[in-house]
Amino acid sequence: MNTRNAPGALRELQSACPDVEISTEPAVLESHGLDWTRFRDPAPLAVAFPRKLEDVQALVRHACGAGLAIVPSGGRTGLSGGAVAAGGELVVSFDRMRQMLEFDPVDASIRVEAGMTTGAVQEFAAANDLYYPVSFASEGTSQIGGNIATNAGGIRVLRHGLTRERVTGLKVVTGTGAVLECNRGLIKNASGYDLRHLFIGSEGTLGLIVEATLRLERRPPPGKVMLLGLTGLDALMNVFSDLRRTVALSAFEFLTDKALAHVCAGHELSRPLETECPLYVVAEFDCPGDEAEEAALASFERGVERGWLADGIIAQSAAQNAELWRYREGISESITALRPYKNDLSVRISRVPEFLQRMDALVAEIASDYEVVWYGHIGDGNLHMNIIGPEGLGPDEFEARCHEISNRTYALTEEMGGSISAEHGLGLLKSPWLGRARSAAEIEAMRAIKRVFDPAGILNPGKLFPNDG
Amino acid sequence: MNTRNAPGALRELQSACPDVEISTEPAVLESHGLDWTRFRDPAPLAVAFPRKLEDVQALVRHACGAGLAIVPSGGRTGLSGGAVAAGGELVVSFDRMRQMLEFDPVDASIRVEAGMTTGAVQEFAAANDLYYPVSFASEGTSQIGGNIATNAGGIRVLRHGLTRERVTGLKVVTGTGAVLECNRGLIKNASGYDLRHLFIGSEGTLGLIVEATLRLERRPPPGKVMLLGLTGLDALMNVFSDLRRTVALSAFEFLTDKALAHVCAGHELSRPLETECPLYVVAEFDCPGDEAEEAALASFERGVERGWLADGIIAQSAAQNAELWRYREGISESITALRPYKNDLSVRISRVPEFLQRMDALVAEIASDYEVVWYGHIGDGNLHMNIIGPEGLGPDEFEARCHEISNRTYALTEEMGGSISAEHGLGLLKSPWLGRARSAAEIEAMRAIKRVFDPAGILNPGKLFPNDG
Repeated sequence: MNTRNAPGALRELQSACPDVEISTEPAVLESHGLDWTRFRDPAPLAVAFPRKLEDVQALVRHACGAGLAIVPSGGRTGLSGGAVAAGGELVVSFDRMRQMLEFDPVDASIRVEAGMTTGAVQEFAAANDLYYPVSFASEGTSQIGGNIATNAGGIRVLRHGLTRERVTGLKVVTGTGAVLECNRGLIKNASGYDLRHLFIGSEGTLGLIVEATLRLERRPPPGKVMLLGLTGLDALMNVFSDLRRTVALSAFEFLTDKALAHVCAGHELSRPLETECPLYVVAEFDCPGDEAEEAALASFERGVERGWLADGIIAQSAAQNAELWRYREGISESITALRPYKNDLSVRISRVPEFLQRMDALVAEIASDYEVVWYGHIGDGNLHMNIIGPEGLGPDEFEARCHEISNRTYALTEEMGGSISAEHGLGLLKSPWLGRARSAAEIEAMRAIKRVFDPAGILNPGKLFPNDG
Repeated sequence: MNTRNAPGALRELQSACPDVEISTEPAVLESHGLDWTRFRDPAPLAVAFPRKLEDVQALVRHACGAGLAIVPSGGRTGLSGGAVAAGGELVVSFDRMRQMLEFDPVDASIRVEAGMTTGAVQEFAAANDLYYPVSFASEGTSQIGGNIATNAGGIRVLRHGLTRERVTGLKVVTGTGAVLECNRGLIKNASGYDLRHLFIGSEGTLGLIVEATLRLERRPPPGKVMLLGLTGLDALMNVFSDLRRTVALSAFEFLTDKALAHVCAGHELSRPLETECPLYVVAEFDCPGDEAEEAALASFERGVERGWLADGIIAQSAAQNAELWRYREGISESITALRPYKNDLSVRISRVPEFLQRMDALVAEIASDYEVVWYGHIGDGNLHMNIIGPEGLGPDEFEARCHEISNRTYALTEEMGGSISAEHGLGLLKSPWLGRARSAAEIEAMRAIKRVFDPAGILNPGKLFPNDG
């Protein structure tokens, strides 16, 4: 697909879908042709804004017949280029499908259109004395459909699991325009293959998610946040294990001294602790009464005695909880202007320290002039690596060097049984390395499954699978 | 496949897999050709007992080439005939693959061979101060591989989810003998389609599960069990909602007066309450201190005041917890001798009362001389229906009448958006009604996926899919 025949392709599209809002405004092509990755120039053919299931079906059926590539598009907060349209594709945006369709208080579940934001779901749950636990920095903008397509994680996975665990029903339009209603909101359903889980995490390559039924939870007890200063990497798993045994942890996030420096500078925050440490942890635990706080303090004291911890602070109010969270949640935004090369990796939890050590050695060897900012979700084995090039480096050279770092990094995750993407997906940026995450037999099966749901190959081409296949 | 060429087929199998233990002892054919369903006569060609991955591969490769049907076989406690071999199939048993392969205390996970029993996994977890929550009556015999193949549920789903939620890694041999290692024990892994979830619940039709990595949990606080006598069906959801709001429920199971009569007679138990009620509930909640017990008692008193509850008892020791559980857990065994026609259904939780009412009316209309024993997991929308025919009825007539009840029942679950199987799977007994649970488009996709992993169609034919397709 290229844009040379754009006027013809556009006319055909518009006449095939006369009832669907289709925009070719330059500002819309620009905004909806990109996600939060910034390594491509947006160049979609057009952006469609369906308002209902039938609109989506009409768009897909036309695209299937015309061989027109479709890029499904949510809040576009992705970091792997999964929603990038840089080659004359039709972007199908869910911005006009944001409605709450049904609330069932006995089931504690809601049915929503794919364009509802994560934050709106959280707010609806809270207003009904329930809880939607999936939470991350971009939740105000990201949409449920995109969350499901990437199986979004975030800071509460340790306790509450990924988006996958929340989805009890899914309405999907496949690459032929067929509608599948997967699992219909049931908790237990042992009637054949659970297609729902194929679509979760499929990054728009198998179908367009139009509707989801989500399980809400009982509101958890009030939480309390601690910020801990660690003496070094060796202490990390000890602190995690001790705290996990002692209290009901709902988050355990780490950041390095470099990450802390960026977030303090970027958000004009004062340093949270007097002691400077190489590593910090932001942890939250259930605190229904004094007992839990005392237990957490005892764990802290053990950590100090054993030489794991150098300093720490525990919040005394909900406002202080939020203040301490800013040191972790604000990192990503604070380095955006430096255009970091972002990477999102996972290994088994027990292998995190070895992985961090070997990664440090690797970067020191091949890019000692680069700054690496680490943070992430220790309790899930999920690490976010952000590489910042020296000033004055051209973008092409920076990208080439980062490509080399990625090559080495993914060889290491493969060797250590980890994944090249924990929660951002492969998208456009990581698809060339699919073979570092999955075996040849798995990739063959995945391609065959892709052909089942998208025989014309129109759904998000170039994403997830490398283009050469 | 039939057994006319059995001697030749057997010789070929043995010479192709000389290192694998293959039995044709009549007692073994009898025991391993059936599961807990009793509607077929066992007639396998042979039963193979692989000891390692390579044995399984050799068996599958030979079967694939020879067009020999394979029935994967675990603890054979299934209730839908998923492990029945009644037509000259090769049964592949995991009885010799029961080892614990790895325990990772930091990850709180274990890697086990498929033949390890559910109970052995629970015991290993408990011995290491951890918890494996999947629990049901046959856990002492059922195997992990079978649990995964049917996505086993049980009595703790309300809090801890199904087997699906426990599996972080799967090693599978597909219908061509290829080995897939799915997800490798990671918590977060966004690198393409999650094939793991396709195999979970696939009832041996896509591959043989040889190994699994399972996530264990922190041991929950001590639980306390209540047995409640309800005034009627109308009270059921009110009692559930009030109790769920009040305490941290880990189980909420119901049984009818008829179910209670059977369990008391079958296990020589005295009636638990003085008052006779139409409906009973066995509920368990976290009880770390007096506060939770007081809250549960307050909920009970509200139930009495509002006319929902007529009587109740709360356990005062771990031994009493176990005693109260017997009234629920012993039902299935207490009616086995009556050869009930068992059915395992689900609807959304909020629709349970309407479903029970309509089912009662349906059975009264078409089989008023039959006894129906209901029990199940209200908190998951999962109901177990057991139909007992009048004495003196011939088995063929009974089966024919039950078939008619099933036809009407599945039409009702379809109308109410439920499932014809909540946790037992479709197996051989329910596969004819697949179309009542899934749309034509879904079934078409499922058949295409089956061809991807089992192109020769040798894996558990006749199970899950109707034979006519």
